Amino acid sequence: MNSIMQYETVSLNDEESSLVILNQTKLPNEIEILHLKTQNEIWNAIYSLQVRGAPAIGIAAAFGLYLAAKKIEANDYASFMRELRDAKDYLNSSRPTAVNLSWALNRMERTAMNHKGKSIPELRELLRREAIAIKDEDTDMCRRIGEHGLTLIHDGDGILTHCNAGQLATSKYGTALAPIHLGRERGMNFHVFCDETRPLLQGARLSTFELYADGVDTTLICDNMASQVMKNGWVNAVFVGCDRVASNGDACNKIGTSGVAILAKHYGIPFYVLAPTSTIDMSISRGEDIVIEERPSYEITEMWYSRRMAPEGIKVYNPAFDVTDHELITGIVTEFGISYPPYEESLKKIFESKQNNQQN
Amino acid sequence: MNSIMQYETVSLNDEESSLVILNQTKLPNEIEILHLKTQNEIWNAIYSLQVRGAPAIGIAAAFGLYLAAKKIEANDYASFMRELRDAKDYLNSSRPTAVNLSWALNRMERTAMNHKGKSIPELRELLRREAIAIKDEDTDMCRRIGEHGLTLIHDGDGILTHCNAGQLATSKYGTALAPIHLGRERGMNFHVFCDETRPLLQGARLSTFELYADGVDTTLICDNMASQVMKNGWVNAVFVGCDRVASNGDACNKIGTSGVAILAKHYGIPFYVLAPTSTIDMSISRGEDIVIEERPSYEITEMWYSRRMAPEGIKVYNPAFDVTDHELITGIVTEFGISYPPYEESLKKIFESKQNNQQN
Repeated sequence: MNSIMQYETVSLNDEESSLVILNQTKLPNEIEILHLKTQNEIWNAIYSLQVRGAPAIGIAAAFGLYLAAKKIEANDYASFMRELRDAKDYLNSSRPTAVNLSWALNRMERTAMNHKGKSIPELRELLRREAIAIKDEDTDMCRRIGEHGLTLIHDGDGILTHCNAGQLATSKYGTALAPIHLGRERGMNFHVFCDETRPLLQGARLSTFELYADGVDTTLICDNMASQVMKNGWVNAVFVGCDRVASNGDACNKIGTSGVAILAKHYGIPFYVLAPTSTIDMSISRGEDIVIEERPSYEITEMWYSRRMAPEGIKVYNPAFDVTDHELITGIVTEFGISYPPYEESLKKIFESKQNNQQN
Repeated sequence: MNSIMQYETVSLNDEESSLVILNQTKLPNEIEILHLKTQNEIWNAIYSLQVRGAPAIGIAAAFGLYLAAKKIEANDYASFMRELRDAKDYLNSSRPTAVNLSWALNRMERTAMNHKGKSIPELRELLRREAIAIKDEDTDMCRRIGEHGLTLIHDGDGILTHCNAGQLATSKYGTALAPIHLGRERGMNFHVFCDETRPLLQGARLSTFELYADGVDTTLICDNMASQVMKNGWVNAVFVGCDRVASNGDACNKIGTSGVAILAKHYGIPFYVLAPTSTIDMSISRGEDIVIEERPSYEITEMWYSRRMAPEGIKVYNPAFDVTDHELITGIVTEFGISYPPYEESLKKIFESKQNNQQN
C-alpha cells in the first residue's frame, strides 16, 4: 500500500558502498534512482538539487562523509582527520547557505574529534553510526510531528498544503505532510489539495508525486484556486512547513504561504505550521527582521516553458519567501508538541520540554 | 508615447477590404498583424482566440459581417438578406457561447431588417456605419469607465490587476485597465502589478504586453506573490474586470479574483470591479446562482510547458472563474458611474441613469 516507501529519499545501499537517492530533478516524469559512489557525484547531487530539502541534504552529506571515511587509507589519526576534513569542506561547498548541510557535517567531524584514541576502523564505525543516527533522528522527529499533527484532523478530512514539506525533503514522512503519511500507515484517508506553488512548482512536481505514490487522494490546483477550494467547503485544515519561525510566532515559508493563511482566516479554516524546533529562532523577535531572498526573473518568465511567457524587458518581482503573521497561525506543530498563541510564551515552553526530553 | 495605439486590437484597413487584428496567440513573443480577407479567415481568428475578449470579438464579427455584405452580389433585398443571414450564422458559430458575438451580429442583422426599402449599396453603407458605431460605442464606454476609475486613484499610485481586462479585450482602453491607459494619455504614471494569472497566463502574456507597450511602469508577479506586494505597501487599489455581476454585487471573474479581494480586505486596500453595465445581470440575485465552468486538466499540467509538470493520472481541479462576494468589493465602476454598497440599491440607480442617458 505504502508504495512511496520503495523510493527512499536518501539512504545507503546494503553494501554501504554508495549513496542511493531518488533524483528529484527528474520528478514527476521519471523515477530515477541514483547510486552515487564518488564524492564528486555526491557533491553534484546536492549542488544540482537532485536531493533537496534541509533535512535530506544533511543526511546525504553525513552518509557522503562516511563513504569518504571508508576510503581514507591513512594509518594514523592526524592523517585520517586531515583527509576527513578535506572531504567535509568539499561536501560543505556544494550548497554553502544550507544550514543543515554544515550542521550535519560538523556533527560528523565532532564525532571523530571526540574519539581521538580510537583506531581508524573504530572511527569509521563511529562515523557510520553517527550518520545513521542523523537519519534515524530525522525520521523520529518527523514521526513525532506527524503524531501531534494527527490529533488536529479526522479520517476523511480535506487538507490543503503549499510547496513541498514532505518525505522528499526529509528522511521519511516529511513535516507538513507527516500527519498524512503517518495516517496512511494507519489506514486513514485524507483528501489533499496541493497548491502548484509557482514559480518552481514544488507542489505540482513533488507533493503530488509523493502523496499519489502513497495512495493519498490528491488534487492539484493552481495557487489562485485555493480561495475557491476553501469556499467549496473542501478544506478542514491547512498544513504548511516552515523555514524559520520568530519568537513571536511569525513564520517565514515559501512565497504564497501568507496569502493562504489570510484566505484560511477569511473562511474560518485552521492554519497550522508544522516544523521541527530547529527552525524556531528565538533570537529573532518578529518576522519583519527576516530578510527575504529575491530570485531571478527567468523563473517566472521562461523556466519550464517552451517559450517566453512575458515580454522581453518586463520588470519581475520574485521573492522566494514571505512571512505569515503570527495572528494568522492557529498553531505551530513541533516534535515536542503543539504551540498555541500567545507564541512568546508557548514557544518557550516547547523549548523547555525539548530540554527536559534531552536530559532524560 | 502611447505606442500601443499603433497596434489596434481590431480595425478595418483603409480600403475596408480586410479586418486587421493583432494576433493575440503570438503575444508576447511576436507582434503579428493579421489582415483577414475571407469569412473563413475571420471565423478562424475568433475560433482560435487570435482575437479575444467579449467586446473585441463583437467588433470583429460586426466588421466581418460588413465585409461579407460588400461581397454579396444579390440584386434584390430578399436575396441580399438570405446571403447576409448565411454569413451571420457562419460567423456566429465560431464561438457559440460568447454573448457579445451574437449580440453584435444580431444588431447588424436588425439594421438591415429595419431598412427594407433601401437599395443594396445603401444597405451596405448602413451596415458599415453600424459596425463602426459598435466599435466607437465600445471605445466611448471604455473611456467613460476610465474617467470614473481615474477619480479613485492618484498619479504615482500602485495598482494591482488580475488577468487581462485591457485594451486587448476591447476596442481601446479596456475596462480594468482603462484608467491606466487614459491616465497615460494625460501624462500620468502608475505602477501596475500584473498577476500572471495561472493557468492561461493572461496577465503575464497580455496585460504586461499592453501596459509595457503603453509605457506604464509594469511589474509581473506570480499569483501567490500578491500578498507580499500588498504587505510591502506597494498597492493603493486593486482594479479587476468582470464577466458577470449579480444584482447584489457578487462578481464572477477569472479564477483567483476572489482570493485577491480577500487579501485586499486584509491589508485595507480598496478593491474595485470595472465593468460595463452589459455585464450586470439584474435577473441573478446572488453569485451562488452562477454556474462555474471547469476546464481541462492539461491547462495546469502540460500547457505551455516543455514537459509534464505533475504525475500522470493526478486529479486536477481547474475552475475558470470564481465569485467575489459583494462584501469584499469597495465599488463597481461602470460607464454610467460608480456603484457603492448596498449594491441592490446602487446598481438599480446605475440602470436608471443608463436609461435616462439613452432617452436624452
